[in-house]
Parts: sequence; structure tokens; C-alpha cells
Amino acid sequence: METRRKSKQVLVGNVPIGGDSPITIQSMTNTDPHSREHTLAQINELAQVGCELIRLAVPDQEAANNLKTFVAASPVPLVADIHFDYQLALIALEAGVAKLRINPGNIGGKDKVKILAREAKARRIPIRIGVNAGSLEKELLEREGPTAAAMVESALRHVRLLEDEDFTEIVISLKASNVPLTIEAYRVLATQVPYPLHIGITEAGTWFTGTIRSSVGVGILLASGIGDTLRISLTGDPVREVRVGREILQSLGLRQFGASVISCPTCGRCRIDLAKLAEAVEQLVLPISLPLKIAVMGCAVNGPGEAREADLGVAGGQGEGLIFRKGLVVRKVPEAEILTALQEELQKLTHI
Amino acid sequence: METRRKSKQVLVGNVPIGGDSPITIQSMTNTDPHSREHTLAQINELAQVGCELIRLAVPDQEAANNLKTFVAASPVPLVADIHFDYQLALIALEAGVAKLRINPGNIGGKDKVKILAREAKARRIPIRIGVNAGSLEKELLEREGPTAAAMVESALRHVRLLEDEDFTEIVISLKASNVPLTIEAYRVLATQVPYPLHIGITEAGTWFTGTIRSSVGVGILLASGIGDTLRISLTGDPVREVRVGREILQSLGLRQFGASVISCPTCGRCRIDLAKLAEAVEQLVLPISLPLKIAVMGCAVNGPGEAREADLGVAGGQGEGLIFRKGLVVRKVPEAEILTALQEELQKLTHI
Repeated sequence: METRRKSKQVLVGNVPIGGDSPITIQSMTNTDPHSREHTLAQINELAQVGCELIRLAVPDQEAANNLKTFVAASPVPLVADIHFDYQLALIALEAGVAKLRINPGNIGGKDKVKILAREAKARRIPIRIGVNAGSLEKELLEREGPTAAAMVESALRHVRLLEDEDFTEIVISLKASNVPLTIEAYRVLATQVPYPLHIGITEAGTWFTGTIRSSVGVGILLASGIGDTLRISLTGDPVREVRVGREILQSLGLRQFGASVISCPTCGRCRIDLAKLAEAVEQLVLPISLPLKIAVMGCAVNGPGEAREADLGVAGGQGEGLIFRKGLVVRKVPEAEILTALQEELQKLTHI
Repeated sequence: METRRKSKQVLVGNVPIGGDSPITIQSMTNTDPHSREHTLAQINELAQVGCELIRLAVPDQEAANNLKTFVAASPVPLVADIHFDYQLALIALEAGVAKLRINPGNIGGKDKVKILAREAKARRIPIRIGVNAGSLEKELLEREGPTAAAMVESALRHVRLLEDEDFTEIVISLKASNVPLTIEAYRVLATQVPYPLHIGITEAGTWFTGTIRSSVGVGILLASGIGDTLRISLTGDPVREVRVGREILQSLGLRQFGASVISCPTCGRCRIDLAKLAEAVEQLVLPISLPLKIAVMGCAVNGPGEAREADLGVAGGQGEGLIFRKGLVVRKVPEAEILTALQEELQKLTHI
């Protein structure tokens, strides 16, 4: 793990991005932005599972007009995602969003960007320059193709436009659906600007492939010290994006959101229904905010070893389980009672 | 992406590990090894989804006696996983397994390892030294705790025992459930031995957490050039382990197993049921072995751009989809006909 890249800190509402602040987790609503009811419900749901910044697409005037309501009701800062029409960004600023995301490939030229910089600066609202390999400026794309160099150049052009207006509350992202391309682009950019970086793999795919591509790409970037805030892009319910983001950060020891369950893959040695038990234990520990480590192990090979290193553990035997707490065997119970026993021991550890 | 570490090539049956051979995917059966029927069924199922080496736990004499049948029937080389009792390894060698996996922490001392080295050498069967943080040698664990240094020392001791017998058909793994610890251990070992490395995160957890931790850990190792063969450990059906392993390798461009589907996370701009469509397209392309790129995109922001870069793509509009093939818009169809249209275009691309 390389040391985290030093970056300028930018404040999005009350949430800092960059510097030595925690690496934050973002997501984006995918409800119809014209429906206040559905969109507010999703904002609340995302905030509840730990989403720290929520982005909304603002495709038209009607959606923009809803932003004031969303800002007033949201428990976390909101980010307006603007493409094509810079005037929607002006309405979003007026509505009180905490950050703008604009796409250099389609926001429509220097003058528009400069107007946005001035208006955002007056309100101390940061701007994310969100480059996407799928929507680069036409002439860049024709000259370079969708390369890392083209993505970096697209970002740097807009950085200069903003800096010309003395605007430095900047966050940058450089997303592609191709993992090595994304990593290369961020690595090049990371040495050229002081601004915090928003990372992610875009259009990563369905739950299955998207989770893997995102974990690989974001994991590699984080391990090389790059990334101040992240958004996992998955086709489907964005709640899953937040859960995946948390697990990635927790797996690298970069954030701690609660208890971790480790469980063995089971093999021909396992004599209890471990998969079912592990899934149940994972549900059991969801509300726990203490950084406990729970080991659900199938047999005597690594079971007692892992269970001893954990705060709480079970090592399966022939139709039974040995329960370990803080390194000591505390109970031996039949398989049917393992979950209840773990629950009781958890209560002793958490006093809830 | 760093250049792949140079390693000695070891042959497991007809499957090479290390050198410039492809990074292979392994898994492990979790059926009762006493049941020939269930275990053979799982071996065949794993081979069918692309598992290139299959490991079996050999907990006792009865399981060891089944190995001959498994070896004769398996479409891919089999690896015997031995703990505690080195005599089971001798039976496995006799039965014709293609590799042994022994655990230095529990196989029982120098003499046993030396006997195994001689017997394996006589049959030209490689040995994997499979260190696991959960089952280190007792005195190492007491002196060092489960650290990267202790894991590397455990492996190197056994490497020396094997080398003393002029045995060099060695593969090494150093697994822990903690991702940064695993990465550190492999990075230290990688510079100290010429042998190929088998990588993975052990006891990674359920499908959800295990997939993420494995993708993060294995992804980071591969990006730093480490890893000649891999096994993803997930609590549950091992078929999923193979699928995750393939997706990790494919996401980094290290192997190509068939078509890739990219799809956008959808947002307030999306006007079609993209999640359902993306899942259906993912199923549709499963049998395709050509390295096609299929883009399933919700709207006009990145949709046409990504769809144009892909071999085949759809960009959603208001209840309809624009179908792109090799950069050209070929059709515009109502939402209900998108899947059929993609299927027809796929047939033209694949001639099946």
C-alpha cells in the first residue's frame, strides 16, 4: 500500500474531500428526477446505508426546479450532475446544491465554463470536472481516440479555465469502462494537479461484473495512494453501490464501518452448512458499528487459528461448532444452536 | 500495471503454471469427498465453467482411496489438498494426482516433507507450499504472530527442505483473510524465490464480501505483476469462484474468455429498464467465445460514445433504443424489441 497522495481539501457542504479527510462514498439516484416522492425516498435510503454525498441527474428545467426541495430535505449534501445545458447548472447553484459536476466533453465551450466558475465561486460551491471516456470532446476523440492522454488533456483544459477565474475548489474524475485505461489516466493526472480525485470505473456493468471490475479498479487505485472520494457504478439499485464501496474501503483498512465477517470457502472437510451460517451471521452483524472481527470457519485446519485471532468465531466440527471469544473456547454447541450461541456472545461483546 | 514477475514454469499435468503461461484459474470441490457421485459431478461442473485445475480435500483414507477414480474421470488436472497426515499424500501420489498441496504449519516436520519431496520427484509431481495465516507453525505464531514476515519464513523453510532434496517443482501461496497482510506477504516473497505464485485471499467470506475482498486483493497483486495462478475463495458454490476469477483476469486484460458487457449505472436520465436488459444481455453472451464488447447504455450522455466504441451497443432513449454495430447506427427499435434486435445483430457478428 502506497502512502495516500497529498491533495488539496475541498468542502462539499459539511463533507470534506481530499487532504487527510476520510475517503468518502458517493452514489447517484436513478429515480425519475421529476418525481419528488421517489427521488426523496431514494435519497433517504442511500443516506441511511452510508452514502455520504448523493448526486442527481438534472436533465431538464423541471428536474432543476425540484432541486430546492431535495436540498431542503436531504440528510447529506447533494451534487447536481449537468450535461449539455450550463443554464441548468445555474439553476442548481441557485437551488443550493453543494457541488456541481460538469462534463468537459459536452458542457459547451469556454464561455459557459467561465460563467459557471464565477457563479460557483460567489457561492463557494466546488465543481467536479467529470471526464468520461465515452463522451470526450469531439476533436480530442478524433485526434487521440479514447486514450488516457486524451482524458487527462480534457480534464487539464477545464482545470485551466477554472483556474483562470481564480477558481480552485476543484475535484476531478477520469472514468472509463476499461480498468487499465482508467488506472493509467488517474496515475498520469495524479502528478499534475493538487486537486482531490473522485475515482470509479464507469459503466462497470451488472451487479456481478460491475462489482468485480469496480473492486479491481478502485482497489488498485487506492493501493497506489490515489482516490479521495469514490463512486461505484453498478447497473441497478444504487444502495448496492454504497455497500460495495464500503466493503472495498474496509477491506484495505482505509475506513472502518463496523464488524467484518470472514468465512472459509468450505471444502470436502466441512461437515456443517457453512454458507447458510455465514450469510446469517453477516445479517446479524449489520447493525454493529464496533470494528469486530467474526470468523465463521468450517473445520479444524484454519478454523481454530482464525477463530482465535477474531473477536468471536466458530470452527465447525462433525455436526457441531466450537465457539471462540477473544481467543478462548467458550462453548461447544450442536449445529442447530450455533447461530443463537453466536448471537448471545455478540451481545456480550457489544452490550446491546 | 507492472510487468509480470518472471518465474520458473512448473507443469501440473498438462497445465503450465508460471513463466509466460497464462494465469490459470483454480477452484476446490466442497462436496463430501467420500461421495464419488457428488464429487465427480462437481469436478465436471467446475471444468465446464472454465476451472483449469481442481483441488480436492483429502481428509482421510476413504477420501484418498477415491482419488484414483476422480483422476481417471476428471477433464482437468487434480490437486490433492493434504493436512496433518503426510501418508495421505503418499496415497494421493500413488493415485496419480497432478499436484500436492501441503501446509507447512501442520504437515508434521522435516522428515515427512523430505519423504514427500522424494516421492513427488520420482513421479515429477509438483508441490504447492500453501501457507495460511490461520495455521502457521506454533512456534512461529508465538514468536511473530500472524505477520507477513512469519508467513514468508514459514514458506521459505519448506522451500529449503524441498530444495535440499533437489526438488524445485514448487508453487507457493501465502494466504490470509486480511487483504493488506496478504499483499505484503506476497510482495516480500516475490523477490526471494524464483517459483510461481498461487494467489488468493483466504476465508474471504460470503459471495458479496468475498467477491469484493478477492477482487481487491487479487487485483492489486496482479497489477503489481504478482500471480501465476489464482483461486478465489468464496463461501458457497465454487462455480462462482471460477466466474469471479475469470472476470478479474478479463477486467485487467490478462486473459480473454469471451464477450464483455459494459452497462451504465442508470440515473435520472434513463427512460428504459436497463438493469433487466443488461442482465439479459449478459446471459445472452455467455456462450460467445469471441472477445466482443457489448455496451448497454441508458441515455445520450455516454451512450452513443460507448456504444460506438463497442462491437455492438444500444443507447436508450424515450422508450426506445438505438442499436449500434461496429460504430454505425444500424437500427432504432421500441424498448420491447431491444433484446431481440441485439440477439439478431450478435448472430451477424458471431455467425452462430
